[in-house]
Amino acid sequence: MTMPLNGPAAPGRDPIAEARRQWLAHGWHDAADGMAAVTSVMRAQQLLLTQIDALLRPFGLTFARFELLRLLSFAHGRRMTMRKAGQRLQVHPTSLTSLAARLASDGHITREANPDDGRSAILVLTDTGARLVEDATAVLNDDVFCGLGLAPQDIAVLVDVLGRFRATRGDFAP
Amino acid sequence: MTMPLNGPAAPGRDPIAEARRQWLAHGWHDAADGMAAVTSVMRAQQLLLTQIDALLRPFGLTFARFELLRLLSFAHGRRMTMRKAGQRLQVHPTSLTSLAARLASDGHITREANPDDGRSAILVLTDTGARLVEDATAVLNDDVFCGLGLAPQDIAVLVDVLGRFRATRGDFAP
Repeated sequence: MTMPLNGPAAPGRDPIAEARRQWLAHGWHDAADGMAAVTSVMRAQQLLLTQIDALLRPFGLTFARFELLRLLSFAHGRRMTMRKAGQRLQVHPTSLTSLAARLASDGHITREANPDDGRSAILVLTDTGARLVEDATAVLNDDVFCGLGLAPQDIAVLVDVLGRFRATRGDFAP
Repeated sequence: MTMPLNGPAAPGRDPIAEARRQWLAHGWHDAADGMAAVTSVMRAQQLLLTQIDALLRPFGLTFARFELLRLLSFAHGRRMTMRKAGQRLQVHPTSLTSLAARLASDGHITREANPDDGRSAILVLTDTGARLVEDATAVLNDDVFCGLGLAPQDIAVLVDVLGRFRATRGDFAP
């Protein structure tokens, strides 16, 4: 989804640059660059998610499921309450329940009762899940994270600028 | 969805910076910065989409529906074949059919038979749809695109770096 807010463009031309031209032509000068930036983020996300989900498909994972396994693998004792995992992943409880159910039925996690809070289960990574997430991480590291096609300086700038953007939106305390 | 590939972090700390530390601690030095960049894009997209969809809800629109209306409003005669709209928006035909059905039932577009291609309808923006997309654009311009909270130079860098990333992925011919 997400895309080119552009009018007619020759194939191969950048639809976001086209959209920016349309914005300027309509007199929306103050918004044109912001529109281009927002649409660029949307489009980059779409390209990345498509690639990542394709790489994870042979593992029976989506990026969302991978992130939950990865989170548990870093956690002390490879276990975490649903509540805490939801906060960390910023996933809606309903979505997290559905993610956890799928991972449990695949044998990658188990769900234990939480003695401190009857309403929040504890998610525990299984040995199978731990091996799977290591293998999946190796693939993502090699094929995506090491090979973004950008210079190290570009990558650093991206993290820096998007980090400041995220901080202004309250994503974390800077 | 999408998120912090991080381990335990104090509330308020940047989960992406935490995840990067975990990556380095695991010896994945070549992948740590790329992981941080990819996760930053994912998280920024999530923040933007949440804000945009909330702003568009009073209009009965999602960002995907908005983009289709915006595309048609820029097109010659405010009309475009489904095929062409799908290419421009890079939306799967099934998704586009569903988007168009919803917009048609709301009276924002009509679908006409395409005399040149019986398999591809033509989407036509109605006067109602044209007014709606202008109003929605004004809100997005004011509340999102003009107010990203980043300096003009940051916005330019973001568009530039993400544009080069998109070009390496074949998103357009540079």
